[in-house]
Amino acid sequence: MTYCVGIATAAGLVFAADTRTNASHDNVRIHRKLHVFQWPGERAFVVLTAGNLATTQLAMARLRTDVDDGAEHSLRTFRHLHQVVSYVGEVLVQSQLRRPEDNAESSEADGPDFGASLLVGGQIAGEPPGLYMLYSIGNAIAASPETPYLQIGETKYGKPILDRLAADDNTLEDAARLALLSLDATMRSNLSVGMPLDLALLRTGALAVEPTLRLERESPMWEQMRTQWSLGLRRAVEGLPRFPWEQA
Amino acid sequence: MTYCVGIATAAGLVFAADTRTNASHDNVRIHRKLHVFQWPGERAFVVLTAGNLATTQLAMARLRTDVDDGAEHSLRTFRHLHQVVSYVGEVLVQSQLRRPEDNAESSEADGPDFGASLLVGGQIAGEPPGLYMLYSIGNAIAASPETPYLQIGETKYGKPILDRLAADDNTLEDAARLALLSLDATMRSNLSVGMPLDLALLRTGALAVEPTLRLERESPMWEQMRTQWSLGLRRAVEGLPRFPWEQA
Repeated sequence: MTYCVGIATAAGLVFAADTRTNASHDNVRIHRKLHVFQWPGERAFVVLTAGNLATTQLAMARLRTDVDDGAEHSLRTFRHLHQVVSYVGEVLVQSQLRRPEDNAESSEADGPDFGASLLVGGQIAGEPPGLYMLYSIGNAIAASPETPYLQIGETKYGKPILDRLAADDNTLEDAARLALLSLDATMRSNLSVGMPLDLALLRTGALAVEPTLRLERESPMWEQMRTQWSLGLRRAVEGLPRFPWEQA
Repeated sequence: MTYCVGIATAAGLVFAADTRTNASHDNVRIHRKLHVFQWPGERAFVVLTAGNLATTQLAMARLRTDVDDGAEHSLRTFRHLHQVVSYVGEVLVQSQLRRPEDNAESSEADGPDFGASLLVGGQIAGEPPGLYMLYSIGNAIAASPETPYLQIGETKYGKPILDRLAADDNTLEDAARLALLSLDATMRSNLSVGMPLDLALLRTGALAVEPTLRLERESPMWEQMRTQWSLGLRRAVEGLPRFPWEQA
């Protein structure tokens, strides 16, 4: 499993991801799931990946080599963000291994799941920024002011904090803190999501992904964040109204 | 779906449940899932139910009629709580309709799922209180000081707040507030979990379930609780450490 979250606010985009990969309970490793593609001043994108690692690594490699080879279609060639998203969707679909039996009648083939999903966000000069979630079949949905965040992977544990506080008018740094809290909630409840974490910010109009941050378990900021959060939650519970019988 | 949670602290037991039932997206109704069985001063139990409604209603009816009929085995006859839990497990298993094909080779029978799971907690005079989760096949696990809460139904959204704050040394009222927050988080994210909520407390040694509370969406206490919680969370986020670049 994996957990990646993107938040779109008026101030820009926040991207956060864990780095744990595993095959069942085994073979636990660290692999980057947050990928930056940028041409500062011209265009900047971040892609977050969840699902089959061979699939997502192949897709990321293709995105890079299409640029390096000067292909007709690449992250650098499109004029509009929605075209970029469609192109990334095509690359994603083409990167998923197809088994022979996928064409047979049985739709429930056993064996590994080669599917993957992505979050893609960014900005091209002259356009507003945008944040999209790409399904494994290549179609996409966009974040909006009413639904300012998108998630892939193990999404449930980290959703309540976002539902309560993620909003279009968050400062970008507050949105980044919410993304980290959402990841922390997920890591506490699901062993397959783990440190270190990657964080990236793309400010509206900056056309550059900056800053980016890798948070290790031992980093003082992470320790301090968790401690302060626990303390703040405890205070928030203490501030809740008393039950009728407690007032007696 | 459903969401029920029980918390076991040194001070006693807390039980909380939503009341929404549904068949897919349809036929949304209100049914009580928190059931009290008590003989004050002698023994007191609370049962929370999740899963097939016909199954859980039949199981609850059997628990009551076994008592009313003076059956050899009933909630009133056992000397020890773990025996009560085994008995409730047997009643649960017997209340699940078995389809003819359950005996055939195919283990993936289509059609409705008659399974159900329960949380059972209580105290018998002379014993400490206990909280158990009963699986649909009748076996059970108990809460403990290290793992002071148990959940059934849609468990993920409401887990992070419990993981952070539920503890053996919570006051019973604080544990009750955590249970309600856990339910609120779940209701915000999952349409199949809904108001009103039922809450019941069983204080260690009291041998009576008291107080119990039904919270309606319009109840001033519930409104106030949600408002205060959002405010408290916002303050907790504001109290988090700044990123290095914010301090510059």
